[in-house]
Amino acid sequence: MELFNQYAFIGCEASLENSDIVLFGAPYDGTSSFRPGSRFAASRIRIDSYGLETYSPYLDRDLEDRSIYDAGDLSFSFGNRELVLNTIRNFSREIILRGQKPLMIGGEHLVSLPAVEAVSEKYPDLMIFHFDAHTDLRNDYMGEKFSHATVIKNIWDRLGDGRIFQFGIRSGLKGEFQWAQEGHTFLNKFGYDRLPRAIEMVKDKPVYVTIDLDILDPSIFPGTGTPEPGGIGFSDMMKIIKMLSVLNIVGADVVELSPDYDPTGVSTAVASKVIREMMLIL
Amino acid sequence: MELFNQYAFIGCEASLENSDIVLFGAPYDGTSSFRPGSRFAASRIRIDSYGLETYSPYLDRDLEDRSIYDAGDLSFSFGNRELVLNTIRNFSREIILRGQKPLMIGGEHLVSLPAVEAVSEKYPDLMIFHFDAHTDLRNDYMGEKFSHATVIKNIWDRLGDGRIFQFGIRSGLKGEFQWAQEGHTFLNKFGYDRLPRAIEMVKDKPVYVTIDLDILDPSIFPGTGTPEPGGIGFSDMMKIIKMLSVLNIVGADVVELSPDYDPTGVSTAVASKVIREMMLIL
Amino acid sequence: MELFNQYAFIGCEASLENSDIVLFGAPYDGTSSFRPGSRFAASRIRIDSYGLETYSPYLDRDLEDRSIYDAGDLSFSFGNRELVLNTIRNFSREIILRGQKPLMIGGEHLVSLPAVEAVSEKYPDLMIFHFDAHTDLRNDYMGEKFSHATVIKNIWDRLGDGRIFQFGIRSGLKGEFQWAQEGHTFLNKFGYDRLPRAIEMVKDKPVYVTIDLDILDPSIFPGTGTPEPGGIGFSDMMKIIKMLSVLNIVGADVVELSPDYDPTGVSTAVASKVIREMMLIL
Amino acid sequence: MELFNQYAFIGCEASLENSDIVLFGAPYDGTSSFRPGSRFAASRIRIDSYGLETYSPYLDRDLEDRSIYDAGDLSFSFGNRELVLNTIRNFSREIILRGQKPLMIGGEHLVSLPAVEAVSEKYPDLMIFHFDAHTDLRNDYMGEKFSHATVIKNIWDRLGDGRIFQFGIRSGLKGEFQWAQEGHTFLNKFGYDRLPRAIEMVKDKPVYVTIDLDILDPSIFPGTGTPEPGGIGFSDMMKIIKMLSVLNIVGADVVELSPDYDPTGVSTAVASKVIREMMLIL
Amino acid sequence: MELFNQYAFIGCEASLENSDIVLFGAPYDGTSSFRPGSRFAASRIRIDSYGLETYSPYLDRDLEDRSIYDAGDLSFSFGNRELVLNTIRNFSREIILRGQKPLMIGGEHLVSLPAVEAVSEKYPDLMIFHFDAHTDLRNDYMGEKFSHATVIKNIWDRLGDGRIFQFGIRSGLKGEFQWAQEGHTFLNKFGYDRLPRAIEMVKDKPVYVTIDLDILDPSIFPGTGTPEPGGIGFSDMMKIIKMLSVLNIVGADVVELSPDYDPTGVSTAVASKVIREMMLIL
Amino acid sequence: MELFNQYAFIGCEASLENSDIVLFGAPYDGTSSFRPGSRFAASRIRIDSYGLETYSPYLDRDLEDRSIYDAGDLSFSFGNRELVLNTIRNFSREIILRGQKPLMIGGEHLVSLPAVEAVSEKYPDLMIFHFDAHTDLRNDYMGEKFSHATVIKNIWDRLGDGRIFQFGIRSGLKGEFQWAQEGHTFLNKFGYDRLPRAIEMVKDKPVYVTIDLDILDPSIFPGTGTPEPGGIGFSDMMKIIKMLSVLNIVGADVVELSPDYDPTGVSTAVASKVIREMMLIL
Repeated sequence: MELFNQYAFIGCEASLENSDIVLFGAPYDGTSSFRPGSRFAASRIRIDSYGLETYSPYLDRDLEDRSIYDAGDLSFSFGNRELVLNTIRNFSREIILRGQKPLMIGGEHLVSLPAVEAVSEKYPDLMIFHFDAHTDLRNDYMGEKFSHATVIKNIWDRLGDGRIFQFGIRSGLKGEFQWAQEGHTFLNKFGYDRLPRAIEMVKDKPVYVTIDLDILDPSIFPGTGTPEPGGIGFSDMMKIIKMLSVLNIVGADVVELSPDYDPTGVSTAVASKVIREMMLIL
Repeated sequence: MELFNQYAFIGCEASLENSDIVLFGAPYDGTSSFRPGSRFAASRIRIDSYGLETYSPYLDRDLEDRSIYDAGDLSFSFGNRELVLNTIRNFSREIILRGQKPLMIGGEHLVSLPAVEAVSEKYPDLMIFHFDAHTDLRNDYMGEKFSHATVIKNIWDRLGDGRIFQFGIRSGLKGEFQWAQEGHTFLNKFGYDRLPRAIEMVKDKPVYVTIDLDILDPSIFPGTGTPEPGGIGFSDMMKIIKMLSVLNIVGADVVELSPDYDPTGVSTAVASKVIREMMLIL
Repeated sequence: MELFNQYAFIGCEASLENSDIVLFGAPYDGTSSFRPGSRFAASRIRIDSYGLETYSPYLDRDLEDRSIYDAGDLSFSFGNRELVLNTIRNFSREIILRGQKPLMIGGEHLVSLPAVEAVSEKYPDLMIFHFDAHTDLRNDYMGEKFSHATVIKNIWDRLGDGRIFQFGIRSGLKGEFQWAQEGHTFLNKFGYDRLPRAIEMVKDKPVYVTIDLDILDPSIFPGTGTPEPGGIGFSDMMKIIKMLSVLNIVGADVVELSPDYDPTGVSTAVASKVIREMMLIL
Repeated sequence: MELFNQYAFIGCEASLENSDIVLFGAPYDGTSSFRPGSRFAASRIRIDSYGLETYSPYLDRDLEDRSIYDAGDLSFSFGNRELVLNTIRNFSREIILRGQKPLMIGGEHLVSLPAVEAVSEKYPDLMIFHFDAHTDLRNDYMGEKFSHATVIKNIWDRLGDGRIFQFGIRSGLKGEFQWAQEGHTFLNKFGYDRLPRAIEMVKDKPVYVTIDLDILDPSIFPGTGTPEPGGIGFSDMMKIIKMLSVLNIVGADVVELSPDYDPTGVSTAVASKVIREMMLIL
Repeated sequence: MELFNQYAFIGCEASLENSDIVLFGAPYDGTSSFRPGSRFAASRIRIDSYGLETYSPYLDRDLEDRSIYDAGDLSFSFGNRELVLNTIRNFSREIILRGQKPLMIGGEHLVSLPAVEAVSEKYPDLMIFHFDAHTDLRNDYMGEKFSHATVIKNIWDRLGDGRIFQFGIRSGLKGEFQWAQEGHTFLNKFGYDRLPRAIEMVKDKPVYVTIDLDILDPSIFPGTGTPEPGGIGFSDMMKIIKMLSVLNIVGADVVELSPDYDPTGVSTAVASKVIREMMLIL
Repeated sequence: MELFNQYAFIGCEASLENSDIVLFGAPYDGTSSFRPGSRFAASRIRIDSYGLETYSPYLDRDLEDRSIYDAGDLSFSFGNRELVLNTIRNFSREIILRGQKPLMIGGEHLVSLPAVEAVSEKYPDLMIFHFDAHTDLRNDYMGEKFSHATVIKNIWDRLGDGRIFQFGIRSGLKGEFQWAQEGHTFLNKFGYDRLPRAIEMVKDKPVYVTIDLDILDPSIFPGTGTPEPGGIGFSDMMKIIKMLSVLNIVGADVVELSPDYDPTGVSTAVASKVIREMMLIL
């Protein structure tokens, strides 16, 4: 008797050992300052992924030709931020040590920090491609150094100048924009017109891609913590991923879907498709 | 690294071989005449079951002391009713042949028919305890013999008089109520005050319990195809299940949650708890 | 005493006999594989059509200058697919025999099949203009030949090569795209840039237009069974209809609004406006 | 070809001339002080009435044995309160002059005033049975004499002491409760335990019944302008209507459903059933 | 002890006396013909404004460099249109007499009339820049001269030809478009391509800007009374505001957010950002 | 010019100095294990409190006769649990030192811990009346000692046996129930039938009342983190508060409203009324 297994993301049929990519969820939203709920993203995405096809007409590639393992969600309590970060760091490290690539589903953006830390242990010359509506470059947020609003600044603390490329940014403190423009990051305001230049700059260096889905306009992606009108369209996102496909991507994440804020389910459909496309270029 | 497995219903940790009860989903809503969507019930219930505890203070029993296997959802296309019914009948039969008890999550009420057919093969003297807002005793619905509105009549066609006990009924054609009152079924209008009498009548006979969750008042269970105000409360449902626990139940189902019609999630929470309690008395 | 008649679509004030166009609903969603509910489209559209004006600034035409009869919704049971298809086929045939043009509101996309069958009886050289996110070219869907996912393939079975023009397509199996590209249909991936070429090809031949509203981006049309990000905008839809106005359109349908999935009501407003514009070019 | 006419309330199949009861909608919500939207009640109720049966097991009566005409909705602009009140008064008067009974669907509670005015012209000894969460006995609301919050006071101005019986009241100014208790109205706080006494008092006098649905607890009726927890249950409402069936009711209304505030649709289902039951006792 | 004051719009920290701009809400929606609820706009906008930054990367300006006082909402009863209009007119007049600029949050569009009346008393040569999906040029709406659908015609009655510039218009009666095109207003259908020309025409004259947010496409702004697909994007709105910044704006309003119709909250986020940008150019 | 001040809870018109009660919000939900969002409770409650009257027919008391100051919301970052707890503890202590009574709006249930700590400094013999669906008696939750699921255990750690009275409890680990029944707390399963006995036991001792609103049945209170069907009704809550009015209550809180999970707004209306009644007995 054949059962419909709707537990893993569509097309993720490899075993842990035989997979090239390990998908996992990091359901933490403990520092969200406006609307929480990204903790529910990964489980909702898995169910709704069955509204997708495995074939992408954008990339002309098929998930059936990939070896991906869906490891499920990490398990942690919400009140202890440090423990959460450790859990993600350790799990990412295990994946990398097996020679696989991690693809993490957030959770809020702070979850990128421990994943980047783990990946950069193996790749000290790691480059970050950061897609987001927000700068995320604060030193602290209401006194807290570790927050969704400071995550890229924390990554910079580790990697330094010349390593971070930011696209789609349309919200932040005046000081954050200024600090970036002093040369600390490569910041593309509003859109991604300078993405070809950035791709050229990093050449074959190892790259970690972090996609805060609120880079998308809330018309197509309302289900997020802090919707920022003025974002890019879904077709732009598809073009970006196609452009990224020439890079040497060694890890990635897709964060900040808060599914309960979008009763139409479209935000989850969008996140699912972005993840499918990322799987196809990893 | 410990992962949070939220794929099976909480507490369903037995293997197929070692389990006494097999839980499975039958995501069919093809004959729903008003609001469809019960196809999504089982997958939503699994996720939200993690808001429950395994321990029931109502029954003072714990899922951790049971051996239950969650088989996932049956897989079928929606346009072909006959194929769907066959799939459910066959799967139920397999469970019974292994000496286990089936606990099915609907789907709409028509899914009960093939399950009852399978169970009654083994137990020809099977009794049916039917909890519902609706009579479900039509001969046909707009010309169709097999429909959510005819399911109990179809079961009667197989089992005959004196075998069906109906509770909570508060909607139907005048003719349906009359037909029941002619003695074809034991019909308890509105409530369940005659449940003790019915339990006494069946004694140790094998019983199949089918719970159409719309027996509950839509104040506590709005997420269903045809909400019928005037139903019983959740505490009544708990009392009913406690009373049923003395019976020799050999199979059961819980049907007609349509989760997308309740954005508060309460209907799914209710369904999850009813299923937990049913597991504890099976 | 003047009453506000909100029962028919706005501006549909002709009698059956005196009308050129007959609008009707086909509220069937029995083969929907993901989210059902398009059964509710027509009745919701009628109510919300009163948020529209009868005048279109896009076409500079007014519904008040047309003779349209709104026949209401066809009546059928959901469990019997064949009966549903027959009912639609017969009703469409009656309209055509009276020398009128049918404009059908779905329901899911399978309802187009019997309508096209009826129209092609009168117009054996019928051409199909198909607007959709999905190829709908499968031979079968989970074993079923008649499904929303196979409807265009079924139409091809009847009409053959060179008769079907598809626009906006962005989701399907790899094999479906390949089959189309072998020349069986004229398939315009993602957009409608090749629409002028197609219009030129069909010249004065009779044309049936089938609009699966999920061709629209879910940002503007989230209320549908399978939302596919990456679609065209509403203004594109207006341009397309204007371009189609030179064709000899003999029948049309607008399908796949599932209104309950869009609590904002925008999807219904969009569908209403598309229907108004289609009325103005029929 | 049979079409599914879902335009009139279920079971309202008489012609205007042959009917005993005329159902009509008064979609005005212009003085609502908190959440508007009761203007949409009547059209939503008509559609959802098809989820009902025509037979009531509560009363053991069937709509098919009644002669009811559904006249649709009155048509008026929202900004001009006086014109709205005149339109309702005139339409109610026409019904009464034909010897029929008006059954009005609100709209907000102010619509009861002109209906009562029309009915009391024919029946100067008219009694009012008022079911509501709110006293509605203010002299003015923010300076306005004609408001949903003053409607019963306005009716008292016309009818005087000893004519108004209020049930379910659980919200109001301290002064409103005091004024009622001085003997101006018969006010039953919270519930309806004194309803038998009131029925005895009015005997065979002509009675107008006005049901503000917010008398119901918001658990079962959340879709209303000012939800007041602590109300009666749906089964209480059924008992009340059964008790009222001995009265000589000459007109009635059911007001204050604001359907868009209840995405589950349960409030509309409740309103539909209350209207069905009222039709069966009129 | 520091408290989080979320009562005023973000960045509005000036006292009444020291402010250049006075923000206030006019929560009236009494003539809305389709979906009411804009009465809730201002209070929701204030809360959600805390999801914004005070700095605008679009204008490179910061609210912290402005002196703005948030006066809260005007208080009035809904049933008395004339009193509402008077209250708004008087309050606007007070602001102007103090030498400040009014920035009003609607409410429906009729609230613009009394504000414009007050402003034009001081500036008899006032120009109106009107952004909207609808013409709003009817002489009356269902017999009413003062309505959201007649507001611009009423303003024209006061100011006359050559004073009103309309952009984004995509819905109206045929006659309204014709009347405008006879030269009574400068009407830019669909978009704002003629905005530079209009800006050139008014030069340094005093300008009142009225933004009916339904000029935006409902994909990004679904929460409004009458959603009209085919509107401009949010980025267009940002461009428009930047272009307007060269004008001598002496008053402005932002109207027609009906927040309860958008459960995602995006419409409120959009309105908040439009208001922030307007504050920065006033 | 009179403005409608909807910033403070209705009827809270005293100054800080002249008030007997200080109302404040503690918008923290950082340890919520299922559905977050109680951070939005206080600001939503303030707005919707204007749907209430100041007079309570339950208690026959009026807010206008009380002196209450609404201090707004405490301000803190979400990622740092310890800082949050300190902020609440300090603010509560200030209130108590001024001789006033704190009434706190959560937030999640963990916020009760620091408030109780502050109150028990002044009243070492403090008694706790705890209303909740959940035991909240775990030693730790997924390794964390400070969590919404451990809050009462933490309070017990401070106060010891014989000080905590729990009502309405219907969910917890088997071990939690057992521990309570060993005499550590006075635990009333499901309902509040033993409340009179408890009131008798504490006599005139100082009492802190903590109301987790999920004690209410989710039919009337769906907007909460972990809805538990089987709770008490709103009228029960009113009876409880009336019974509590004889106690010497020195502080209180009302927690766990998560308003975004109830689009009907009823949960917020319920919370508002509970707070009004608590104000009237403090």
